[in-house]
Amino acid sequence: GESIYKISWTEPTGTDVSLIVNLGDKLFHGTIFFPRWVMNNPEKTVCFQNDHIPLMVSYREAGPAYPTEVIDEFATITFVRECGADNDEVINCPANELPDNFPANL
Amino acid sequence: GESIYKISWTEPTGTDVSLIVNLGDKLFHGTIFFPRWVMNNPEKTVCFQNDHIPLMVSYREAGPAYPTEVIDEFATITFVRECGADNDEVINCPANELPDNFPANL
Repeated sequence: GESIYKISWTEPTGTDVSLIVNLGDKLFHGTIFFPRWVMNNPEKTVCFQNDHIPLMVSYREAGPAYPTEVIDEFATITFVRECGADNDEVINCPANELPDNFPANL
Repeated sequence: GESIYKISWTEPTGTDVSLIVNLGDKLFHGTIFFPRWVMNNPEKTVCFQNDHIPLMVSYREAGPAYPTEVIDEFATITFVRECGADNDEVINCPANELPDNFPANL
């Protein structure tokens, strides 16, 4: 489809993600496949994971991985801005450290 | 997008799948997340898996699951037919048992 992009990746936690960004309709759809241990103990993954890769991998290896939980969810795109490639400032903190006025601050 | 469908599931092997069917453009895009053991020994999964669920689960548990392999691929949709819901005759054999003249036989 025109102006529709699909982005997929796998994470150090073992979580698989496949997202659709529909810029024409300002719609977003995400599918996430969570290992069972993330469903059982989501608090283990609520951090800026880039700073804790070996810990995430150790959780992944400890499991249990299965049964995988498939989550589908829609969202509305409310803000779009060109920020350049490989810009690590776009996401640079965990959600709980975002300013109180986010996303109005952008 | 109009006439675009997303279908996602997880399999007894631990494989995660998220497919896009674009009926307007007759385009297909699939993302598959393969556990490492499927990449190492794909021949273990080449069968009509519905007849071998406990075996697939035992392979899944034996692993290794990680690192996950992410595969993205496009395909062209060449044939569309309404077959009704829950029709197990649509896919009823492994690929190697399809007739020589498939899909011309449809």
